[in-house]
Amino acid sequence: MADIITPKILKGFRDFLPGAEIKRRDLVERIEKSFRSYGFVPIDTPVLEYAEILLGKGGGETEKQIYRFHDHGGRDVALRFDLTVPFARFLAEHRSELTLPFKRYHIAKVWRGENTQRGRYREFTQCDFDIVGSDSPAADFEILLLMRDTLSAIGAGEVTIRLNHRGLFNRFLAKINAGEKSPEILRIVDKLAKIGREETGKLLGELLGEARAQTVLGYIEAHGSYEDTLRTMTRFAQGDTPGDTPESDRLWMLRRFMEDTGTAASFVLDPSITRGLDYYTGVVYETFLPGLPEIGSVCSGGRYDNLAGLYSREKIPGVGSSIGLDRLIAALETLEKNTEKNTCAPLVIACIREEDAGAYQRLAGRFREAGIACEVFFEPKKLTQQFILAEKKGARWVAIPAGEAPLDSPLTLRKIALRKDQEHLSWEEVARIIQETP
Amino acid sequence: MADIITPKILKGFRDFLPGAEIKRRDLVERIEKSFRSYGFVPIDTPVLEYAEILLGKGGGETEKQIYRFHDHGGRDVALRFDLTVPFARFLAEHRSELTLPFKRYHIAKVWRGENTQRGRYREFTQCDFDIVGSDSPAADFEILLLMRDTLSAIGAGEVTIRLNHRGLFNRFLAKINAGEKSPEILRIVDKLAKIGREETGKLLGELLGEARAQTVLGYIEAHGSYEDTLRTMTRFAQGDTPGDTPESDRLWMLRRFMEDTGTAASFVLDPSITRGLDYYTGVVYETFLPGLPEIGSVCSGGRYDNLAGLYSREKIPGVGSSIGLDRLIAALETLEKNTEKNTCAPLVIACIREEDAGAYQRLAGRFREAGIACEVFFEPKKLTQQFILAEKKGARWVAIPAGEAPLDSPLTLRKIALRKDQEHLSWEEVARIIQETP
Repeated sequence: MADIITPKILKGFRDFLPGAEIKRRDLVERIEKSFRSYGFVPIDTPVLEYAEILLGKGGGETEKQIYRFHDHGGRDVALRFDLTVPFARFLAEHRSELTLPFKRYHIAKVWRGENTQRGRYREFTQCDFDIVGSDSPAADFEILLLMRDTLSAIGAGEVTIRLNHRGLFNRFLAKINAGEKSPEILRIVDKLAKIGREETGKLLGELLGEARAQTVLGYIEAHGSYEDTLRTMTRFAQGDTPGDTPESDRLWMLRRFMEDTGTAASFVLDPSITRGLDYYTGVVYETFLPGLPEIGSVCSGGRYDNLAGLYSREKIPGVGSSIGLDRLIAALETLEKNTEKNTCAPLVIACIREEDAGAYQRLAGRFREAGIACEVFFEPKKLTQQFILAEKKGARWVAIPAGEAPLDSPLTLRKIALRKDQEHLSWEEVARIIQETP
Repeated sequence: MADIITPKILKGFRDFLPGAEIKRRDLVERIEKSFRSYGFVPIDTPVLEYAEILLGKGGGETEKQIYRFHDHGGRDVALRFDLTVPFARFLAEHRSELTLPFKRYHIAKVWRGENTQRGRYREFTQCDFDIVGSDSPAADFEILLLMRDTLSAIGAGEVTIRLNHRGLFNRFLAKINAGEKSPEILRIVDKLAKIGREETGKLLGELLGEARAQTVLGYIEAHGSYEDTLRTMTRFAQGDTPGDTPESDRLWMLRRFMEDTGTAASFVLDPSITRGLDYYTGVVYETFLPGLPEIGSVCSGGRYDNLAGLYSREKIPGVGSSIGLDRLIAALETLEKNTEKNTCAPLVIACIREEDAGAYQRLAGRFREAGIACEVFFEPKKLTQQFILAEKKGARWVAIPAGEAPLDSPLTLRKIALRKDQEHLSWEEVARIIQETP
């Protein structure tokens, strides 16, 4: 007997069986429909790129996690680890073919050799959407509104989008002479929800001294209504200087847009939201599901002022966001808003005689044309066996054709869950019953 | 000034700009809808697998072309080069979770380090669909019917599916004592259309001698009606033995199914179709588009008797097919049945005052809910500039809100192609005009 290779997959990688894959695809379809309704368009880029392009100036974590190797031609290549870097390269490379502002989405897999002990996957799907080539607050707001609409369209319920402005925070840090330590401070503040107030204060104290650490805590803990919070933040950032800052103006403008669209209840101004990544320069935001704060942000992003800077001398500002698809699916399952899908067509045509497969397919064709997915069984097993198989596959109905002249004789329709038959039905009657049964 | 990294992609790899990507996604959506209507379900597998799994017993061309490397953990891994091998592994690994017959489809990218000089891509999309766990001719037929229906659903027109039976051909080869050379003969015959009759005869002559080469040519050149061709093939395979072979019986059964579904005109029995790959054991088929034989087969496949044999001792027969998506898109472009899609929503809301972005989004929301994708412009540029931008992006209409109270005032609607405005319209009237204009 031949040797068998044990079938196995790599740690951190997953197969998607039909139940899970149908769910994923349906979710992606609804997300895409929402994006398209706002005039966003899809792009795709290669999975494999020059390592030099993907790594850019290089950088700690990324460099350690990236799947990198030499191809047949000796080229130094790597699998993409996100969709942002390929988009920056795409933008620089196709600049002359695109009309700005350019609104694109990209839903695709990325790879990171993460430590799987933390429950991380090494292959996962990202879902990015961005508006590049506009610095307008209207563009910031469109991304925020689209986040809200899309999460609502996929049944995530009434979400809360927490937003902040990195520029305002940096203005405040400059005011207290801590501007140069901004990246470190942003990273510490980003961990507030995870490590708690005390630990955050301790880390800030080590970096800034006790007094300034307390001031920073005061800023990031400002809360209340959007208006009150914004006034507090502005006061911190302005010190004794009266009036608003350009960043506060933008946040006031966003507030107006929220009110004019009747969506103000979905947004919270939260000065502790920073997003760890360095490239954001303007508004930043995270989204939490109602009743599921522990799952973390399912959709986050922000404004950057120079996305393609590594590859182009043209400065292209943009604003964008990313949906954590895997996290969202887990969340929706918890919310029971996305129950297991059938992995089978609802209707099965039973097989009475093997030689009538053509007639059965013709019959099935009528149901398919009427919009009812329909499976034809191939083998003339005992009917009870066919019922068991249909149930196992997740079908809800079995249509039993006559032994002779199956196309011209009435059908019997079995409702599997009830083990109940209705006899002498035309195919139209069967279609009507199936369509009218919830 | 900072150094710029020249943006470039790897040879044999492609970016998909919105126009092309929208086309691809719409095509995939229609293909999936057709698959699902027959009760086929999607799966997905990792892009990266153990090289040992993907290469199996190893093998010339594949081994040379596969992208293979060692990951961070020192594992010997590779990018999948097709969707068949991962499916075989999937089947063996998840056998206990699946109900047979199992009908799955998988649409995903694969990678091969092909010679790009022949216009081949190194990253391309495959679209496979299979029924495993049934040896019934009804399963063979369902794949054939689904190929026909799917190609029709995507606008490929009246296709011709050419089919053959490998088993019958092998029976014939055994009859003329050439059974042991079957793989080489199959490979030579597979090239008939490419290298011509004379060269095929020469190669067969070198392998089998002149007399047997002529007999093989006689077999593969049998043509006429399905019935006549099948009778000729059976006679060749049976020699002096009267009656049909099991393989002929199956081909007769398929003929009956074609007639019973009224699809006989779409199928041609062609004894020269062999499919080069070794693992087919039963029916095999290729599909040519009307008027475009030179583009080659856009959908092909066949029956195999032991798909998961490398990974499992259970023998699982199956039948399947694969759509060449890239080739098909090229073909549809030639047929002009898939013209360039707009890369923009049909309707744009012009921007009069920046601070009214909320009102514009609310207005846009009404159109989106009515099923009209709608883009909102962010910057209050001159209207003529906004018209130019809208046209460049591919929009067809611009709705111009009033400067004051944009939600409560009538709209002006510009039809871009005609440079013509209609004034004093409610949003409902605008929606109706857009929906009713072809």
